[in-house]
Amino acid sequence: DAVDIDRVLEEIQQDEGMSHSRLMQTATGVREVSKQLQRRPIKRAVRNVMIVTKARDNQLVLLTKDLAQWLMSTSRYGSDLGVNVYVDAKLRRSKRFGAAQMIEKQPRFQHLLKYWSPDLCWSQPEKFDLVLTLGGDGTVLFTSWLFQGIVPPILSFSLGSLGFLTNFKYDQFKESLTKIMGEEGMRVNLRMRFTCTVYRNGKEGHDMDEAEQYEVLNELVIDRGPSSYISNLELYGDNELLTVVQADGCIFSTPTGSTAYSLSAGGSLVHPDIPAILLTPICPHTLSFRPMILSDTLLLRVSIPRNSRASAYCSFDGKGRVELKPGDHVTIAASQYPFPTVVKTGSDWFESVSRTLQWNTRGATQKGW
Amino acid sequence: DAVDIDRVLEEIQQDEGMSHSRLMQTATGVREVSKQLQRRPIKRAVRNVMIVTKARDNQLVLLTKDLAQWLMSTSRYGSDLGVNVYVDAKLRRSKRFGAAQMIEKQPRFQHLLKYWSPDLCWSQPEKFDLVLTLGGDGTVLFTSWLFQGIVPPILSFSLGSLGFLTNFKYDQFKESLTKIMGEEGMRVNLRMRFTCTVYRNGKEGHDMDEAEQYEVLNELVIDRGPSSYISNLELYGDNELLTVVQADGCIFSTPTGSTAYSLSAGGSLVHPDIPAILLTPICPHTLSFRPMILSDTLLLRVSIPRNSRASAYCSFDGKGRVELKPGDHVTIAASQYPFPTVVKTGSDWFESVSRTLQWNTRGATQKGW
Amino acid sequence: DAVDIDRVLEEIQQDEGMSHSRLMQTATGVREVSKQLQRRPIKRAVRNVMIVTKARDNQLVLLTKDLAQWLMSTSRYGSDLGVNVYVDAKLRRSKRFGAAQMIEKQPRFQHLLKYWSPDLCWSQPEKFDLVLTLGGDGTVLFTSWLFQGIVPPILSFSLGSLGFLTNFKYDQFKESLTKIMGEEGMRVNLRMRFTCTVYRNGKEGHDMDEAEQYEVLNELVIDRGPSSYISNLELYGDNELLTVVQADGCIFSTPTGSTAYSLSAGGSLVHPDIPAILLTPICPHTLSFRPMILSDTLLLRVSIPRNSRASAYCSFDGKGRVELKPGDHVTIAASQYPFPTVVKTGSDWFESVSRTLQWNTRGATQKGW
Amino acid sequence: DAVDIDRVLEEIQQDEGMSHSRLMQTATGVREVSKQLQRRPIKRAVRNVMIVTKARDNQLVLLTKDLAQWLMSTSRYGSDLGVNVYVDAKLRRSKRFGAAQMIEKQPRFQHLLKYWSPDLCWSQPEKFDLVLTLGGDGTVLFTSWLFQGIVPPILSFSLGSLGFLTNFKYDQFKESLTKIMGEEGMRVNLRMRFTCTVYRNGKEGHDMDEAEQYEVLNELVIDRGPSSYISNLELYGDNELLTVVQADGCIFSTPTGSTAYSLSAGGSLVHPDIPAILLTPICPHTLSFRPMILSDTLLLRVSIPRNSRASAYCSFDGKGRVELKPGDHVTIAASQYPFPTVVKTGSDWFESVSRTLQWNTRGATQKGW
Repeated sequence: DAVDIDRVLEEIQQDEGMSHSRLMQTATGVREVSKQLQRRPIKRAVRNVMIVTKARDNQLVLLTKDLAQWLMSTSRYGSDLGVNVYVDAKLRRSKRFGAAQMIEKQPRFQHLLKYWSPDLCWSQPEKFDLVLTLGGDGTVLFTSWLFQGIVPPILSFSLGSLGFLTNFKYDQFKESLTKIMGEEGMRVNLRMRFTCTVYRNGKEGHDMDEAEQYEVLNELVIDRGPSSYISNLELYGDNELLTVVQADGCIFSTPTGSTAYSLSAGGSLVHPDIPAILLTPICPHTLSFRPMILSDTLLLRVSIPRNSRASAYCSFDGKGRVELKPGDHVTIAASQYPFPTVVKTGSDWFESVSRTLQWNTRGATQKGW
Repeated sequence: DAVDIDRVLEEIQQDEGMSHSRLMQTATGVREVSKQLQRRPIKRAVRNVMIVTKARDNQLVLLTKDLAQWLMSTSRYGSDLGVNVYVDAKLRRSKRFGAAQMIEKQPRFQHLLKYWSPDLCWSQPEKFDLVLTLGGDGTVLFTSWLFQGIVPPILSFSLGSLGFLTNFKYDQFKESLTKIMGEEGMRVNLRMRFTCTVYRNGKEGHDMDEAEQYEVLNELVIDRGPSSYISNLELYGDNELLTVVQADGCIFSTPTGSTAYSLSAGGSLVHPDIPAILLTPICPHTLSFRPMILSDTLLLRVSIPRNSRASAYCSFDGKGRVELKPGDHVTIAASQYPFPTVVKTGSDWFESVSRTLQWNTRGATQKGW
Repeated sequence: DAVDIDRVLEEIQQDEGMSHSRLMQTATGVREVSKQLQRRPIKRAVRNVMIVTKARDNQLVLLTKDLAQWLMSTSRYGSDLGVNVYVDAKLRRSKRFGAAQMIEKQPRFQHLLKYWSPDLCWSQPEKFDLVLTLGGDGTVLFTSWLFQGIVPPILSFSLGSLGFLTNFKYDQFKESLTKIMGEEGMRVNLRMRFTCTVYRNGKEGHDMDEAEQYEVLNELVIDRGPSSYISNLELYGDNELLTVVQADGCIFSTPTGSTAYSLSAGGSLVHPDIPAILLTPICPHTLSFRPMILSDTLLLRVSIPRNSRASAYCSFDGKGRVELKPGDHVTIAASQYPFPTVVKTGSDWFESVSRTLQWNTRGATQKGW
Repeated sequence: DAVDIDRVLEEIQQDEGMSHSRLMQTATGVREVSKQLQRRPIKRAVRNVMIVTKARDNQLVLLTKDLAQWLMSTSRYGSDLGVNVYVDAKLRRSKRFGAAQMIEKQPRFQHLLKYWSPDLCWSQPEKFDLVLTLGGDGTVLFTSWLFQGIVPPILSFSLGSLGFLTNFKYDQFKESLTKIMGEEGMRVNLRMRFTCTVYRNGKEGHDMDEAEQYEVLNELVIDRGPSSYISNLELYGDNELLTVVQADGCIFSTPTGSTAYSLSAGGSLVHPDIPAILLTPICPHTLSFRPMILSDTLLLRVSIPRNSRASAYCSFDGKGRVELKPGDHVTIAASQYPFPTVVKTGSDWFESVSRTLQWNTRGATQKGW
């Protein structure tokens, strides 16, 4: 039933004699399909909600408790009970969270309150109909790290001022969730992630070994890490040498990450809907190394030359520090597992850019006469 | 027959209860369709070829003559004759071009040699199976201006060093055209254009009047033109105020134009496959006005406030200078008429960026010890 | 008596066999002299005060009246009267200023209230012991224009928020002026100006004609003005070709002007004490044209090549638009007539940069986790 | 005899009632003295020449040998012998250098060939009338490190292409040195250095301890070193808080260093004659943190706040990595020991900037039509 994209692909393949104008019409049509998909709400019932927060932050644990209780006690979808809530397994014995007390007071919560672990997120991501995060942008990045494959829709609450990724206010959680879990449904942005794969230099005459693989939501950074020197980096696109990077390092950023490290290094602000890979050098040694924005259909590869005297280091969304030795390489490709964030209004992004970065606001040069 | 994108759109509309994972699969499939379309060659017969050049440049007229003669005399598609060639109507009586002499020598050319005028390009663009340009990037921009609606595939010859848009060498035209008009067919990049529409301030209580409309391939520039002052510019996206521009001016550039004026003003290099609108301010009055890359699904509008004391001026691909008075506005949207350029290899763009801009090549800062 | 710098110069000339270490000591000593000079207050009596304001601004005229009356009526330097006040000759018959009424009420003002004209400023600048400006930075630039030779000390009042050049608050004028005209005296910053001289292409075999000459406090801008094209500009330093500028234009800015147009075009912020000339291109056509900061000992010359097809246009502190035709040139040199501004505290400049430009304040990129 | 700058200083101090115009004249005179000093040649006899090179580089050792032999054997200053030559003590027993053989062949060299050690450079810098370097810019930086106090004139030979600091060609050493050691004498640029002093957080109630002190010719870099985090850095000028730096790090560069790391981080090019301190942030977290150029009369201090959770690390001309713990600080001030480099022509610097950086050369954006 429903949309069969595979069939469409097949039809295109077969249509050998497609004329130029037919090709143009099809291309325009495909873009229209893409836009429609972005705009349509998801209206399925939300029966399993996961909550992610910093389990060590006392205040956040208390807010998590309030949120969980409200979700479990508010009747939904014809039942007089609420929905299943998964909280961090680290809270299982937390006195502050007080699971035992909660269940004592409300024995019906016994079957609703559950616990998630990183293992569960990796093995059964489809268990969750919605993930709520409480904290800052860092908590959202952590959530991306939890789901290395398919990602459920993510709705992020901010406690103080809204961030780039935390676009819902905690103190309005009841109104927001009632809308989303009800008739209105939710609309999501499919934020691109990168699949980054590190390959180790195999033995002479053997293939490279695939070592680590990470999904990143913001950026992959390759720099000199704790070393004093950095190797030249060879950058390939679809197996062709594009350029050799002589710089303190190099950032491969998603549009989502364009407001983070890439911006500090001089990159442009890129709207998260754009399917692009930002290449932003860190302190390049040439004057002409302007940041570049590449198509997400490109398979990028960064190689450390075998004759390099220094290693380079990768970090993934600001975490991890994986050494790339001479002969190693790392590939970067648009992931088939995007990161769906629940949106509030169409212009969330502009608001956050103006509010958080003070982009083009206040402060002006001296005027003439 | 063949691909029916409208049906796909319809199916998506109807599928009310589409689940999150189904939505994600469909989105991924649509992107795959889009990639396949970009990669497939057009293999239809090329029976009508238009040649664009600078009719006032003596050397170019002679080269046009050689090219036209070769096209008309080289037998194709089972005929012992060549194909129809349309040259600029300005050459009809040019001695240098020598149409009369050509036909005298080869009477069979009489029915093959034809003339194009701007009117013909506007009214019957589908007449041409292929357009060849002889000259620099400027000639390509002129060709874009000729075709304000549907654009035939464009193949651009360079006489000296290759440019950003002129990626075929004139002295290899026989090999190149024989391939493209033969079994191999041609692959095209659909370069985005903008449709820019100027609206004049109608009378009180009336709607705005639509005045000029232009398709641009590189950029729309709004600046103070010959005036000493420039108005603040109000920038709206989908009818919401995004920001107020205080600057010498503002560039709205396509990815194709990212190597032109936008680059001078500090914009990033953007690969032409990316569906994006570059917003690059010219000498902004705030320190925080970093260039921004917007989704091409956005309808942009730049308004001159009614209480402004100054006008602003638009230029379209570096041409024209249309005054925007207080109360007027101009809209920018991705055009439904992209500009299809015939590509040579997959990495044309990188080569031209390195070669022409010296991007990240030669010249380095002082090294340490 | 006192410091005889000419004698010092002579001594240096004669000291043929000066050793390396002696040279180094002398150089260090000279820099020390320069610092001491900057720090020492001027304690001479202030008997003649000039007030500059916008004579067409009604509010400013009233404030000028208050200021003038206070200066004339507050007894100073042993007299029971105040000091001489020069106001704009345009106010002579202004009803709002009401000179006649003032004198009627206080006949003693008759000999104290005087009028300045641009002519008087040019011919007898030493008449004024202190100039007060009321208005914005534009009024200070206008004052610089009035004094094309020697400039008296300038104290600038701001009515609203303080500007880069307007560092005294009008509503505290009594306290400020009482200090400065009293025991404390005033300390001034000698802000560099440029002497810009336009030379016209004389007849074959003749010298160039000196045409206009201007002192600028902020910057000289050379751009295409109302023209669509701009010539390449040849830049010479001490008669050697430094570079050829291909750009929308070129800014030659003083450190004072580094917070104005040069900043918009990407220049650095330069402290006004630094003896330097900022060369900042406007939208340069090469990626490597980084702004450059030149020594103020250099004599710069910008030439329009004789074979250029376009003119260029100069503007001086944002005013005037002088055409440079092919063959003309303009020279820029540190002026022997600096612009002395009365300072309040040592860190005036930093405060104004943070306050007015929001330099490095508020607004930050997305944080990691 | 000769110039007595102390007397001039004294005179300025005493001249209590110096008028404004007298002050301006004196200031102008002092600048003139400064210019004259820069331009005058040193003509003293050069009797002791030190050679610095990389003692491990075989090729350089051979070139050093040639240079030393020529200097010792070419008769100068009325003697039939040459001058004293100091080479690196590491070469004393080098077979490749072959001191023993040299003296065997030419016993008169016995008293001319001497050896320098870092200790000698620190304790008796005035022993050397001229220092020659063979190698790249790194060798010049090493020479600066050798002389932490007074620095003799430095003449730097390049073996391949000229660098920013290596402006004499080795293969023309005879002509160059004959000129400089003869009638023409040498002209030097006094390149500013910084004195950087690290202070450790003393015990409660005690003063800070002065720890390390370094003279730098290019720059002081403060960054996170091998750590993953960096502290906020508090920047003080003359004991007033100027700003708080949130960035990957911060560069304090001399004008000489403006072509090195500061340039990579986005700083302007600054002519070495300008008495200025460049403050260039590395990947700042605010959009408005434009590089700033400060007066060299300022005493800068960078403090790590006591409550910071991370350390910062200093490196001096790219060397050393000194940890700054919370509570520590480092001061930066213009050194009283500048670095005198022998100049070839007036425009050395422009040539090296164009040649080495490709500043504003070749490579241009796409042109219009």
